[in-house]
Amino acid sequence: MNDLCITNACVVTADAQGRVIRDGALAVKAGRIGWIGDSADAPTARRQIDAKGMILMPGLINAHCHAGDSLFRGLVEDLPLEAWLQKVWQAEAAILTPETARLGSTLGFAEMLLAGVTTVMDMFWYPGPVVAAARAVGLRVATGGIFIDGPGVDGLTGPARLRQAEAFFEEYASAEDVFPGVLPHGTYTCGPETLMAAKALTDRYGGFFSTHAAETQAEQATVNARYGRSIIRHMDALGLLDSRTVLAHAVHLDDAEIAILAWRGVTVAHCPASNLKLGSGVARVPDLLAAGVTVALGSDGAISGNDLDPWLALRLAATLHRGTSSRADAVGKAQALHMATLAGAKALAAEDRIGSLEVGKFADMILIDVTRPHAVPLFDPVTHLAYSTAKSDVRHVFLGGAQVVRDGALTRLDIFATLAEVRALMPRIAAAIA
Amino acid sequence: MNDLCITNACVVTADAQGRVIRDGALAVKAGRIGWIGDSADAPTARRQIDAKGMILMPGLINAHCHAGDSLFRGLVEDLPLEAWLQKVWQAEAAILTPETARLGSTLGFAEMLLAGVTTVMDMFWYPGPVVAAARAVGLRVATGGIFIDGPGVDGLTGPARLRQAEAFFEEYASAEDVFPGVLPHGTYTCGPETLMAAKALTDRYGGFFSTHAAETQAEQATVNARYGRSIIRHMDALGLLDSRTVLAHAVHLDDAEIAILAWRGVTVAHCPASNLKLGSGVARVPDLLAAGVTVALGSDGAISGNDLDPWLALRLAATLHRGTSSRADAVGKAQALHMATLAGAKALAAEDRIGSLEVGKFADMILIDVTRPHAVPLFDPVTHLAYSTAKSDVRHVFLGGAQVVRDGALTRLDIFATLAEVRALMPRIAAAIA
Repeated sequence: MNDLCITNACVVTADAQGRVIRDGALAVKAGRIGWIGDSADAPTARRQIDAKGMILMPGLINAHCHAGDSLFRGLVEDLPLEAWLQKVWQAEAAILTPETARLGSTLGFAEMLLAGVTTVMDMFWYPGPVVAAARAVGLRVATGGIFIDGPGVDGLTGPARLRQAEAFFEEYASAEDVFPGVLPHGTYTCGPETLMAAKALTDRYGGFFSTHAAETQAEQATVNARYGRSIIRHMDALGLLDSRTVLAHAVHLDDAEIAILAWRGVTVAHCPASNLKLGSGVARVPDLLAAGVTVALGSDGAISGNDLDPWLALRLAATLHRGTSSRADAVGKAQALHMATLAGAKALAAEDRIGSLEVGKFADMILIDVTRPHAVPLFDPVTHLAYSTAKSDVRHVFLGGAQVVRDGALTRLDIFATLAEVRALMPRIAAAIA
Repeated sequence: MNDLCITNACVVTADAQGRVIRDGALAVKAGRIGWIGDSADAPTARRQIDAKGMILMPGLINAHCHAGDSLFRGLVEDLPLEAWLQKVWQAEAAILTPETARLGSTLGFAEMLLAGVTTVMDMFWYPGPVVAAARAVGLRVATGGIFIDGPGVDGLTGPARLRQAEAFFEEYASAEDVFPGVLPHGTYTCGPETLMAAKALTDRYGGFFSTHAAETQAEQATVNARYGRSIIRHMDALGLLDSRTVLAHAVHLDDAEIAILAWRGVTVAHCPASNLKLGSGVARVPDLLAAGVTVALGSDGAISGNDLDPWLALRLAATLHRGTSSRADAVGKAQALHMATLAGAKALAAEDRIGSLEVGKFADMILIDVTRPHAVPLFDPVTHLAYSTAKSDVRHVFLGGAQVVRDGALTRLDIFATLAEVRALMPRIAAAIA
């Protein structure tokens, strides 16, 4: 007997073939997708959901985030990245502890899950509390040890960072809801030894390696001045680039750097909302796609964004590059949907488990209401997902078949208690950068 | 006695001084704002609303739209403007009648009002049904006679268009909810005689003149080839540019053209979502603002957008130009808010009635829920409005003090009946471009 069967949905599988079933159904058994097909052939199950008027699709994957920075939403404004980052670190240093890191992460994860994100690659101090927050809210998280040279917000030394990262791998080696990896901050904040040590560690455990790269022109200039080569060439020379590498932003690249990323099988986590807000620039997404680079989507943190809306990222990925290239077909809607789903799974080497609705994968899925005025008429569901779906259209969310959002509300967390805790912290946060 | 008093709100007046009252109140009498101040001093009223946890601000003004084209949402995709427009006209010609124009306009206006838009400048065939739709939904509309050379979708001749436009002025001369003007399609679709006749007519009645201008490079090339001068120079030579002129898009301008727009007091209706989607380009908004040009915001139609979300337009206005100019302060949040409010009022010569919360103006206002995770913490309300407010945060909307949206639902219209009518029309719409 199946645990759950959803019928009468427009099923957008987001699989490699782009399969759509107009009157489709999906059955879940033991947390995984057991069957997908026409509603007329749907099997029986303990729980039935009639999804008439809804699109059923995989949960979205956010490939670059700092959920805990939601504590600082709207605090630092109108500065370019470098000046902005100094203020961010000042605020983080004054406020963050394991407890507040967990609080901020809870806030960020709650916002994302309500918007339909079921897996997040999250770079933040205190990875243990980050996992605790993700579990309390109900989504999967890809995270692990943070690396930065000099004293970080968490006060760890270099050797302690390596121990923390290794302990993280050991602790979550068999967890289905955690993808362990390493997350050095960037090539301008981590020296070659730090980067190579982090890479060696993650290779030993089979995890991902994610870092900021080429977000701004200033960052490229810094690395060029320091190492006599561009960021991507520097990383390549250090042996940091392969199919388990995820580079956040990757805005300022030359043609040869794009070729290197393609050759090495690197994933780029495109963060258009953050790049626009901070004046970082516009990533060369059509060129990356043309070269065969896997491009996933990230929200970045709410301190740069200022929210974590995956639908804004998806829509910008689909439209921004048309505007800046004056080509109405610069990025296709199916390509944009792929960025928000399977491309993120590829970055985690988890295409066998997440990123699309296919038999055998985790039943991570969302139901989208298409009965509101902005969804009517609906001629093609992928067009609707790329260009006119809003986060508030996400009505139900399932993680491994368990319902974690019901009618737009979290089922596991008292969000109002979290919001009250954040509000109580606001005077201290404001004082931190005064 | 006041009719309505809203207390305990964070009042963002959006007036010229940017006045914000953290614990503010506002009273309404006979459809107009009678009093604004601190909650502690609030006067009595027949109806009291406790707006704790909400921002009170003026209704947004959408300065360029084709609401009726919502019938064709998602129908024509991945084409540059010129090829796209041929398909749009094909669909419009097959489907539009006064009845279906009203149906499509109802759909579009409903979407906008739910998102907090209380005044729309709308360019569409059949202006009478457009007004009827706006009144049924409950918002103000700026519209009037459409001009185009050759047979339009409505089959009118040139003289009939002039008569229609004049009759429109006569009919709505004293209407508080209609701003009459003329709306020629563009300089590439209307010859000099048509444009000048429309301008002479609107000058006689004191209305606005709105047209598409410089949306694409191809359009500039066409006008240059035909008249030996750029679009703005052409319009200026014809005497079409003054403080009652609203140019939609204005993407492709040189420095001298920007100077002309500033000198003449023209308003630009910036439509970033549409410009990105159609690959038209990115308007030079920071340069327009620096030159002193009034920039308002438009959604354009849902066939290009693919929705009519004013918050997306606002957020793109605030962030897009930072990204494309690599300047984190290219457009300020207060400038972006101004675009969505007072700038639109200026274009309609209606700054004495709409666009901000000030005593004596129409009580067109919206209450925004700021108790959801993406709104917490909230250090500065204008920052929140520019960068993280979603259309679904709009909880209540008032037009002239009358509640037209209550808890996210329209009070005057059965939206489900409208949606059912649109769905019934879908097979014919799809067949129209097959």
